[in-house]
Amino acid sequence: MSKSKLPVLEIFGPTFQGEGMVIGQKTMFVRTAGCDYSCSWCDSAFTWDGSAKEDIRMLTPEEVVDELDQCAPDNYQHVTISGGNPALLASVGPLCAILRDRGIKTALETQGSRWQDWFLNIDDLTISPKPPSSLMKPSLSMLDDIVEKLRNGGRLQHTSLKVVVFNEEDFQFAKSIHHRYPDLAFYLQTGNEDTGESQETGRLVEKLLDRYHQLVERTMEDNEMTAVHVLPQLHTLVWGNQRGV
Amino acid sequence: MSKSKLPVLEIFGPTFQGEGMVIGQKTMFVRTAGCDYSCSWCDSAFTWDGSAKEDIRMLTPEEVVDELDQCAPDNYQHVTISGGNPALLASVGPLCAILRDRGIKTALETQGSRWQDWFLNIDDLTISPKPPSSLMKPSLSMLDDIVEKLRNGGRLQHTSLKVVVFNEEDFQFAKSIHHRYPDLAFYLQTGNEDTGESQETGRLVEKLLDRYHQLVERTMEDNEMTAVHVLPQLHTLVWGNQRGV
Repeated sequence: MSKSKLPVLEIFGPTFQGEGMVIGQKTMFVRTAGCDYSCSWCDSAFTWDGSAKEDIRMLTPEEVVDELDQCAPDNYQHVTISGGNPALLASVGPLCAILRDRGIKTALETQGSRWQDWFLNIDDLTISPKPPSSLMKPSLSMLDDIVEKLRNGGRLQHTSLKVVVFNEEDFQFAKSIHHRYPDLAFYLQTGNEDTGESQETGRLVEKLLDRYHQLVERTMEDNEMTAVHVLPQLHTLVWGNQRGV
Repeated sequence: MSKSKLPVLEIFGPTFQGEGMVIGQKTMFVRTAGCDYSCSWCDSAFTWDGSAKEDIRMLTPEEVVDELDQCAPDNYQHVTISGGNPALLASVGPLCAILRDRGIKTALETQGSRWQDWFLNIDDLTISPKPPSSLMKPSLSMLDDIVEKLRNGGRLQHTSLKVVVFNEEDFQFAKSIHHRYPDLAFYLQTGNEDTGESQETGRLVEKLLDRYHQLVERTMEDNEMTAVHVLPQLHTLVWGNQRGV
């Protein structure tokens, strides 16, 4: 793989960000292929399980920007880079640099398993350590390193932590992460167990809102979780599990 | 009315903020009585239409804080002050000062018809000019003054604009406000026409998500509305039109 190209699976938008620190933001999405994790409930498993291998395109940062421009001519000022784990790719840095030079803001979502120097240039950086239900084992020392580098770079105002919660064990994990980094904005997010595209949206919405309600109640009763946000996946409420929206 | 007391209609929480710049935030709510507006679709008309006159309590800032502590002992770090229009009340300033001294953050929602010096101390200030469908006439010169004072006070990072949209005319109003103050974070929010408590929640959710979807589509197609957020009222999706949650 050339260092200067990115393995891209999806470029789409404009749409809205459905999660976390910039929920509701009008944004474009660039989804890169490849992940060092394989979360049990990953809602984008096609980025790493080989099922969309044929769809991966190797694009230069300039080609990505060209395609963004074609998708949304003069109609975007914010780009979200997601995966997979885009933090595996050095070439995301040049992409963000081109966007920044054009006055376009960038958001990035990663689990916090790798550092990249270009994290310091991301406007809205979401680090999302994976809870026990994912069956992954996040490295806390790596997380410590990442947060320390962001702190030293004066980037904490541009950074948030987000933990997806499926059960009480996940909630306790979320709590431990929040308490480990109390000066970082913290988001709890409901998990979505029904990631197939086939489910009828009305029934899915009911289940998702019910789970969100439960997570809200759990958080409200807990006086060790006060300076936190609790959010659903807003896009899933609107579009169900469709891809590319 | 004593200048040192606040006319309070509701104190409740902890719950989550369902709207705007701190959507999802775990917060307490203090709702003050009285408004200089009477928006046609106001979802808290009981604060100004006389229907809850008997429920208004005149409380000192200290009494408000005592009641917050009783509602949520050691279980809050964020308080949202809403109305009515709390910007009518000089006594909100001392309330915010007490909270700040205790390390508790404050959010305030107001339509931007009045300035108060204590705006400069609010952590999350939402100014929500009312669109044509409200049948109100916002003063743009007053808005200009308020934004200028916030800018001079270095508070723009703590401030956002939010416009509720019921129809295309409202959307055009929202656009004019966004373009007038392009350096302020901007939120579009779906209106809720069904503010009665009786409506069945499932049906209400469907209608609200449909309206949100429409506002998303409208915003996505518009290349004069790029650096914006589009959000529903999240609490209404979860709780319908219930009060006190």
